[in-house]
Amino acid sequence: MVGYAFMGRVHSQAWRSVGAFFDLPVSPAMTALAGRSPERTAEAARTLGWASVETDWKNLLTREDVHLVDICTPGDSHAEIALAALEAGKHVLCEKPLANSVAEAEAMAEAARAAAARGVRSMVAFNYRRVPAVALARRYVAEGRLGEIRHVRGVYLQDWIVDPEFPLVWRLQKDKAGSGALGDIGAHVIDTAEFILGDRLTGVSGLTETFVKERPYAGDSAGLTGQGRSDGKGPVTVDDAALFLGRFSGGAIASFEATRFAAGRKNALRIEVSGSLGSLTFDFESLNELWYHDHTLPAEDSGFRRILVTEAGHPYAGAWWPPGHGLGYEHTFVHEVRDFLEAIGEGTDPTPSFEDGLHVQRVLAAVERSAAEDSRWTTV
Amino acid sequence: MVGYAFMGRVHSQAWRSVGAFFDLPVSPAMTALAGRSPERTAEAARTLGWASVETDWKNLLTREDVHLVDICTPGDSHAEIALAALEAGKHVLCEKPLANSVAEAEAMAEAARAAAARGVRSMVAFNYRRVPAVALARRYVAEGRLGEIRHVRGVYLQDWIVDPEFPLVWRLQKDKAGSGALGDIGAHVIDTAEFILGDRLTGVSGLTETFVKERPYAGDSAGLTGQGRSDGKGPVTVDDAALFLGRFSGGAIASFEATRFAAGRKNALRIEVSGSLGSLTFDFESLNELWYHDHTLPAEDSGFRRILVTEAGHPYAGAWWPPGHGLGYEHTFVHEVRDFLEAIGEGTDPTPSFEDGLHVQRVLAAVERSAAEDSRWTTV
Amino acid sequence: MVGYAFMGRVHSQAWRSVGAFFDLPVSPAMTALAGRSPERTAEAARTLGWASVETDWKNLLTREDVHLVDICTPGDSHAEIALAALEAGKHVLCEKPLANSVAEAEAMAEAARAAAARGVRSMVAFNYRRVPAVALARRYVAEGRLGEIRHVRGVYLQDWIVDPEFPLVWRLQKDKAGSGALGDIGAHVIDTAEFILGDRLTGVSGLTETFVKERPYAGDSAGLTGQGRSDGKGPVTVDDAALFLGRFSGGAIASFEATRFAAGRKNALRIEVSGSLGSLTFDFESLNELWYHDHTLPAEDSGFRRILVTEAGHPYAGAWWPPGHGLGYEHTFVHEVRDFLEAIGEGTDPTPSFEDGLHVQRVLAAVERSAAEDSRWTTV
Amino acid sequence: MVGYAFMGRVHSQAWRSVGAFFDLPVSPAMTALAGRSPERTAEAARTLGWASVETDWKNLLTREDVHLVDICTPGDSHAEIALAALEAGKHVLCEKPLANSVAEAEAMAEAARAAAARGVRSMVAFNYRRVPAVALARRYVAEGRLGEIRHVRGVYLQDWIVDPEFPLVWRLQKDKAGSGALGDIGAHVIDTAEFILGDRLTGVSGLTETFVKERPYAGDSAGLTGQGRSDGKGPVTVDDAALFLGRFSGGAIASFEATRFAAGRKNALRIEVSGSLGSLTFDFESLNELWYHDHTLPAEDSGFRRILVTEAGHPYAGAWWPPGHGLGYEHTFVHEVRDFLEAIGEGTDPTPSFEDGLHVQRVLAAVERSAAEDSRWTTV
Repeated sequence: MVGYAFMGRVHSQAWRSVGAFFDLPVSPAMTALAGRSPERTAEAARTLGWASVETDWKNLLTREDVHLVDICTPGDSHAEIALAALEAGKHVLCEKPLANSVAEAEAMAEAARAAAARGVRSMVAFNYRRVPAVALARRYVAEGRLGEIRHVRGVYLQDWIVDPEFPLVWRLQKDKAGSGALGDIGAHVIDTAEFILGDRLTGVSGLTETFVKERPYAGDSAGLTGQGRSDGKGPVTVDDAALFLGRFSGGAIASFEATRFAAGRKNALRIEVSGSLGSLTFDFESLNELWYHDHTLPAEDSGFRRILVTEAGHPYAGAWWPPGHGLGYEHTFVHEVRDFLEAIGEGTDPTPSFEDGLHVQRVLAAVERSAAEDSRWTTV
Repeated sequence: MVGYAFMGRVHSQAWRSVGAFFDLPVSPAMTALAGRSPERTAEAARTLGWASVETDWKNLLTREDVHLVDICTPGDSHAEIALAALEAGKHVLCEKPLANSVAEAEAMAEAARAAAARGVRSMVAFNYRRVPAVALARRYVAEGRLGEIRHVRGVYLQDWIVDPEFPLVWRLQKDKAGSGALGDIGAHVIDTAEFILGDRLTGVSGLTETFVKERPYAGDSAGLTGQGRSDGKGPVTVDDAALFLGRFSGGAIASFEATRFAAGRKNALRIEVSGSLGSLTFDFESLNELWYHDHTLPAEDSGFRRILVTEAGHPYAGAWWPPGHGLGYEHTFVHEVRDFLEAIGEGTDPTPSFEDGLHVQRVLAAVERSAAEDSRWTTV
Repeated sequence: MVGYAFMGRVHSQAWRSVGAFFDLPVSPAMTALAGRSPERTAEAARTLGWASVETDWKNLLTREDVHLVDICTPGDSHAEIALAALEAGKHVLCEKPLANSVAEAEAMAEAARAAAARGVRSMVAFNYRRVPAVALARRYVAEGRLGEIRHVRGVYLQDWIVDPEFPLVWRLQKDKAGSGALGDIGAHVIDTAEFILGDRLTGVSGLTETFVKERPYAGDSAGLTGQGRSDGKGPVTVDDAALFLGRFSGGAIASFEATRFAAGRKNALRIEVSGSLGSLTFDFESLNELWYHDHTLPAEDSGFRRILVTEAGHPYAGAWWPPGHGLGYEHTFVHEVRDFLEAIGEGTDPTPSFEDGLHVQRVLAAVERSAAEDSRWTTV
Repeated sequence: MVGYAFMGRVHSQAWRSVGAFFDLPVSPAMTALAGRSPERTAEAARTLGWASVETDWKNLLTREDVHLVDICTPGDSHAEIALAALEAGKHVLCEKPLANSVAEAEAMAEAARAAAARGVRSMVAFNYRRVPAVALARRYVAEGRLGEIRHVRGVYLQDWIVDPEFPLVWRLQKDKAGSGALGDIGAHVIDTAEFILGDRLTGVSGLTETFVKERPYAGDSAGLTGQGRSDGKGPVTVDDAALFLGRFSGGAIASFEATRFAAGRKNALRIEVSGSLGSLTFDFESLNELWYHDHTLPAEDSGFRRILVTEAGHPYAGAWWPPGHGLGYEHTFVHEVRDFLEAIGEGTDPTPSFEDGLHVQRVLAAVERSAAEDSRWTTV
């Protein structure tokens, strides 16, 4: 096994922990870490526990001791690496969003389908699916406890660029990042909602906004157009926030919001689902909790209950601590790696697939198109 | 003073309490209660404390001891009564929504303007403005504590018709109710948001849905088209839920939802406002609380704080109990009556004005138009 | 009927509201208000709606149109008035704590028993029993939903004297107030816990503390010992806070706290009850909620659920608004008056009885005795 | 470095993670794992990542490549191992409670003092001190933000033995476990409170209870007295719950509870601290939050604020993720190891010291003594 990890710590941590906590059909090895700088990659490999380094990712593909490539590069290189790795017969775990365009994502999904036929597996890393509470939410919906789903309310709220003096980092530049809050965190809330429902958005009506239109150049922005400006500022070319309404194929209606301007909200991926028999609500800022309302109880006895998702019978939780001893953000990555290794060992296709990643890409594109055309309804 | 109260208890309670708790420039009298049934109106007047009864509301307008008419009838008679009352020189307090159409509301707003020139006052009864926490939210925004407003998230969630066997009451019939969740509770969340911001929506993109398209006839639905159907059911002709996106003139972007299908949510009028310097959040199900995030504090010290809006210095609260002893739903009406009587006594125009009510009507109409036209952006 | 109300507004409000919201076997009349100052009493009667005034409470006892005396005077006159009123055949509603000593309370309880034999009713005004959520908690325990009760955690937290410059008001002087936080708010949390459990404390171990031992004289403290001191301060002679452990006759163990020094807690009467089959928790600062954990559910599905105690089937709530429209502090008094009038009409003895009030007095005395004797266990 | 870990996963995880996330003056090595069974220890070492195994812990003390012994055995062997390890010049990290008696703890504390003089370090593993929110609470108190501390409310609530059919495991037998809830979880809440306050309890008044006095023998209880009983049950010889009141040397008064009978509470280590200038509250079931009330703000603006303790400037948090991405239970162990290694590297004595562990032992003993003597006040 191998990771190719610019994200470094989170994924290294996941590879190291997974074997200690889960019985796995194949064992994870930390074979090689790839990076451009020989010194920094070697240092990272040492600290994080990788056995060897590569400075050209292509070398990973020719090594026989490498069976899996974990792609944590920025979105503009996902397609190239993933296509080559699948071609070389390596399993691929690819960070989200799958790509920077629908066209790239389509090519990747097609390559993944072809590779699967040869027993080569692929997965897109929507890690929030692996929060135990989110997985429990999906289980509840799948078991029919919520009945017919009527409503989804999904938001992903952050606040790290509220200050207009926050610099023009690459995530605020369209040529680098593809889009802003929409692609970065909107993608997560879309996937999480679709995962919980086991259903897909069929159409959307969107609106995007850039509140702070110019920002000071960051130290790392050398070479950007307009840098010569005397005020030291340049244009923000992505959305600060995106709102959209949507419809699911099963009849639910939905509203979504992704923003980096929700002062006081740090990482509030929140989803509320209302059905004919019950409701659920989740907030990543309280990640060990799922709130459930059982609408089949007498009204006098019912209310949203706070389930601490730390019981042995809860998804993933049984591998860890006694009830009430919570997990954190990094465990989503451990669970992700575990599920991928399990699928490889069992010879099944893991989810979310590249096809799932492509679908999210199409939703993002539909939102942008709708926003550009007076919010008119746009089919995904 | 006089009330014309089919709503009965809530308003009667308000008229009775207001004098005991607030110093008022004019004193409230419970002069006459109007109703169609002589027996029921007399009984209600006795129980609720009104001094006399009328079975024709027009008689109220000719009585010299009646100075104010409180219109709590269904929306289809608001315009007729209000126009006549203003013409007769009576102050008018009118339930929301102001009317069943923009045209009616325009006529009423014009009549109110003309009446105001003669010292006759009018007010539309968006009572949630008078929740102390909502009034405090407005104060915070007005004081600039939130800086520039970026986001509004407003929902009004109820669940009383989740059961498909819930009958086809008048509120589910367009000819009687005008619209469904949109006009009934969507109107409240629109007004509350505009009140807190001191700003108005300029455009919307909407979507409406009727989940349960047919319901059993209620006992009180005699005469409705289709009642002869053998299955005892008839069509629901209003929305069960309405979602819309919007923009405020000051630059904020917003999402709104009004639904009667949010299982487990009983009366969740919720608003979150995010600004460049802080944020606020309110939920009527916890009506004595306002949550405030001060974004000017160091990040390490900040977080949403739960302000119990029961201090002497809080809006309205000083007239009631010591800190921590909460108020309830009915007090919104007491405060409403108090503010109206104060305005009459001081010779000023109270808010929300009929003009404000007309504006909400226009937003509702724009949402319906947008929903009918593929969610395209629609100017208010 | 009649009220004798120095508390004024709350009780007047209760008398006025009760008839409008509840069907009553006897109707409440606001016959006479008694007070020492002719002017102030007359003014209060006018504002609050009482038909006549008395400046000597003894006159109330000779009036034939007065059937009930509502005693809201400070604790040092409860016994005298109540004994005389019961003797005169008037029903008595007496504020809590019942008296300033066990001896007085014993005399009152005996008089109440004797009066009851003649059809004269009495009730002590532990109003928190009439919060719908508290009454629902009792119902749950009585229905056996919690199984055997193991634990009670009761606190009553306020913070109005945290500032050491807060003046030496009468409530901080033992000769006037009897005790401090213990008798004022500790009495409430004791009664509320015993009410919910339907059980009584049999022994306690206590500790009391006065954090701020001297305070500036208040304007209204003329005549107190030591007023001549040059620093303008005098001694606080009551407890600022009291903690105690206890045992209930049914086997539950308990901890209690009453304090006026819990910065940030305004009126936090909180009770958590843990049983073998479930648990409950209540906080008056969120008075419309009861949190219930059903321990008979699978662990994976269970958690504390927030029941909004606003359903038609909940205690008292059916008389008011639709679900989710909360009540406030004053409604506890309306419910109290309602229950008393119902008992009078039905010829039954209302609760809490003077006997119940006497028991609370005994618990308070046992806590003080234990605190004075090295916290040793003290039988109630 | 070395760990001697029967607890296995948690501590192994901590040793592995600490180097990747923190800059350390000495690097952690996973040199040897000790256990009685050769097979099971070898298997554990392989899975968890230890380089070698020992089946006699004494061998650890003679190995030159072992510098530190991490004692995770049951309490009855702590003293023997720790004394030998310190004597052998090994640094010692010892699980809590430090020992099973005050006498043992005294010997250990004395040995630790002597060892420290030779540069050999020791630490007792009260891991909850390393929750970022708990460390932040201590910082706030130390900075004087809470002013003079008046109140502490500490509970540690679990519910894993509510069912009377839960078997008689070793933790319910006094000869094995020393005490029940008191020593197991009461020790944690005592240490956490003393850590936050930077102060110590000077006296207590206690009460203990065993609700279920007999339980079925567990499979692992062979050889216990009374096992021959025909009903297959034996006596529970430890407390199910312990309550106590206390006083801190700085003047604060406190109440504590430790129980395994709080149905619905899974791992609720909760502490509320009230001071003259502010208050704090923490609950391990929401471990990434600290609630803070700033009493110096105007009452109208103040309330408990929910600080997400995930900012770069918060204790430990800066080593991990961006704001809002929470940590879990295991990170308390990573932080613990980090702090110990830092102290070793810097040549300072880490905390909590064995002296701190001895003090907690004395509090536990005082509670038991008080409970046995009618709850009379008992000096620590």
